[in-house]
Amino acid sequence: MMKINKLPKIIIIGAGFGGISMAKSFRNKKLEVLLIDENNYHNFQPLMYQIATGGLEPDSIAYPVRRIFRSYKNVHFRMTKVFNVDVSLKKINTSIGEIAYDYLVIATGSQTNFFNFEPVKEKLLTLKSIPDALNLRSYIFQNLEQSLATQKKEEQTELMNIAIVGGGPAGIELAGALAEMKSYVLPKDFSELDLSKMHINIYEAAPKLLGVMSGEASTKSLEYLNKLGVGVNLNAKVNAYDGSVLSLEDGSTYKTDTVIWTAGVKGAPIGGLPKEAIIGGNRISVNSYNQVFNANDVFAIGDVAAHISEQNPKGLPMLAPVAQQQGKQLAKNILNLIKKVPMQPFVYKNNGVMATIGRKKAVVDFPNWKFQGTFAWLVWMFVHIMSLVGFRNKLLAFLDWMYNYFTYDRPLGLIIRPYKRK
Amino acid sequence: MMKINKLPKIIIIGAGFGGISMAKSFRNKKLEVLLIDENNYHNFQPLMYQIATGGLEPDSIAYPVRRIFRSYKNVHFRMTKVFNVDVSLKKINTSIGEIAYDYLVIATGSQTNFFNFEPVKEKLLTLKSIPDALNLRSYIFQNLEQSLATQKKEEQTELMNIAIVGGGPAGIELAGALAEMKSYVLPKDFSELDLSKMHINIYEAAPKLLGVMSGEASTKSLEYLNKLGVGVNLNAKVNAYDGSVLSLEDGSTYKTDTVIWTAGVKGAPIGGLPKEAIIGGNRISVNSYNQVFNANDVFAIGDVAAHISEQNPKGLPMLAPVAQQQGKQLAKNILNLIKKVPMQPFVYKNNGVMATIGRKKAVVDFPNWKFQGTFAWLVWMFVHIMSLVGFRNKLLAFLDWMYNYFTYDRPLGLIIRPYKRK
Repeated sequence: MMKINKLPKIIIIGAGFGGISMAKSFRNKKLEVLLIDENNYHNFQPLMYQIATGGLEPDSIAYPVRRIFRSYKNVHFRMTKVFNVDVSLKKINTSIGEIAYDYLVIATGSQTNFFNFEPVKEKLLTLKSIPDALNLRSYIFQNLEQSLATQKKEEQTELMNIAIVGGGPAGIELAGALAEMKSYVLPKDFSELDLSKMHINIYEAAPKLLGVMSGEASTKSLEYLNKLGVGVNLNAKVNAYDGSVLSLEDGSTYKTDTVIWTAGVKGAPIGGLPKEAIIGGNRISVNSYNQVFNANDVFAIGDVAAHISEQNPKGLPMLAPVAQQQGKQLAKNILNLIKKVPMQPFVYKNNGVMATIGRKKAVVDFPNWKFQGTFAWLVWMFVHIMSLVGFRNKLLAFLDWMYNYFTYDRPLGLIIRPYKRK
Repeated sequence: MMKINKLPKIIIIGAGFGGISMAKSFRNKKLEVLLIDENNYHNFQPLMYQIATGGLEPDSIAYPVRRIFRSYKNVHFRMTKVFNVDVSLKKINTSIGEIAYDYLVIATGSQTNFFNFEPVKEKLLTLKSIPDALNLRSYIFQNLEQSLATQKKEEQTELMNIAIVGGGPAGIELAGALAEMKSYVLPKDFSELDLSKMHINIYEAAPKLLGVMSGEASTKSLEYLNKLGVGVNLNAKVNAYDGSVLSLEDGSTYKTDTVIWTAGVKGAPIGGLPKEAIIGGNRISVNSYNQVFNANDVFAIGDVAAHISEQNPKGLPMLAPVAQQQGKQLAKNILNLIKKVPMQPFVYKNNGVMATIGRKKAVVDFPNWKFQGTFAWLVWMFVHIMSLVGFRNKLLAFLDWMYNYFTYDRPLGLIIRPYKRK
């Protein structure tokens, strides 16, 4: 079947780091790109905890997809939910109907993995989306308001205590920000509360924090968290939560109304792919060209994709730079495919990983240089501000962080999405 | 019964313009103030339409109550719902229990009055709260996304059309902002849509717009709206809406999925007051000292209060300055009461009313000077920026409006509270 006068049509599912960087690479190329997402915005996941702790506004870290592609004539956007793909008929089923493709790119990212806590996940708070983060902010402030209303000490403790399950970047950045909020902001706003009763605890199953980073980063972040008064529990496996008491495998318990789950993610693939293409961690098995196993003209990039190799027996880490680099590379490869030029295998270039625990407290692992402290914190801020989309968001984040730096205060604290009580 | 060593306790219900200005006036005075609100923030109602149209962020026009009173040792805040008052026992019933008072001030403001549309109010959108405004923004953007998905022209029209019922300040400011969004912003973001199919119509039952303002303001605002392409229907009484078609008394109809109701407000008093104290418009009857009729030591200020006099047979207009002035005056009077000094009657000082329809289009009625146009618009912006609470909010509003002025664009457009389809 020959297509005459028709440009090749690429569908990219997901407007995360991978999908956006890929669609951008197709600027003015001779193909039609349809970018699809359930939300109308791209969000900067690494700063989600800043929304939850009142440091930044949602609009500072999220950006409407349509605005990114205003000047791209060959990139179209649809806000819709994808149900599944029919790889033999080369079309996807969505909430706005069937859409045919020549090439399909799955860039759907990851979702929270609750592991053994799956049955009680409704009782947990997460930090994967803008509504999640806004809910968390409202939830914490609402509990503080409620603590003022009760005379029962046990109830107060439960309302004020916070547990964070998971000692990865998300968990420690959140813990650090909450600890600073407790020290600097809450005493001003809740002078009637005895904040010494409020505890912020991290539970990490592994023997160290920040497993994805270096030993130095791990040690230093533990030191920082201790300094900030965060209770760090290593080798701590949680095994139950009844909405009021968090129980550990070793038999110890912690009374808290607030359990924030940052303990793991898994791929979020779409339905309809060959069964053998879905592997461990719910990720999609791809080759070094990001082609999906046993599915013609279907590709996967970013968190949802895993290229298992000897070097990377579990695939590459689920990080924004991996997704971005894969997006760019795959765009080139698809153009090659169309031109019938051989594709180039993807090679990940590690530019470094970083995390911040608080004011003047950050850890940076560059490939050949690891450092921590004030300079790391400045580097972290610079890199994150520059990564935000749009001048307004950069300026706003800069202003809000300067405000925070000089006043030790956080600008935001509205309860605008009252979280329903469990 | 003598109270020894106990300061008089004032409860103020409502952290709107009236409640806040009153609590501020009690700074360092020898009494205990308990301020109560269902939300943890004070919001700047006159700019609510800016949130709905993506011009400002919620955090720019709302401010946590606790932060306003950080330095006030005798002002406490509780976020709770008040069920009713027991005027004989001098206590209120709330979601956090009973609270006794020496003096009670009801500053609960107003709520939407749906009149004949009460039975279909679930099908209407309103603009009275921050969640309302965020919902409206999401709703409009969601409908535009959905218009792209349908091929049926009639469905498209219904999704894109907007009806605003009510031609008061809220209605015309919203209509103007939506019309500018349609002209300047949407063509960039929704280039695939035929925006000529989108209509923005106002329905006003009276023969003129802006009934609360001067004839000049009314005429000029009609001219501005016409220029912006808004369909203004005067003497237009709506009498039904089935979720898809808005019907008027004269038999005409308008197909739209979006009906925004700004056609009226009524008082929002609390329960337990003497029946005879609740008068027309659901307001609380007060005397010139803002004392509630037949209820000892209970006062009411702002929108919820009405002092019926020969000069003001319907009470004073429901405006922020009235509430603020009453709050200040009543604070003085309560201090007088405590000191057993005669109270002073409240006299409203009209400092002017203004409204903006769009870029360089505003109307200002000062007591002795009425003007419209670019200068009025600059005055409007200056007054509104200066009225916002806190330096950060002032700066942010200024930056966002400058951005809008120079780019003809609006910074915000996230669909973060997906409004459930009717």
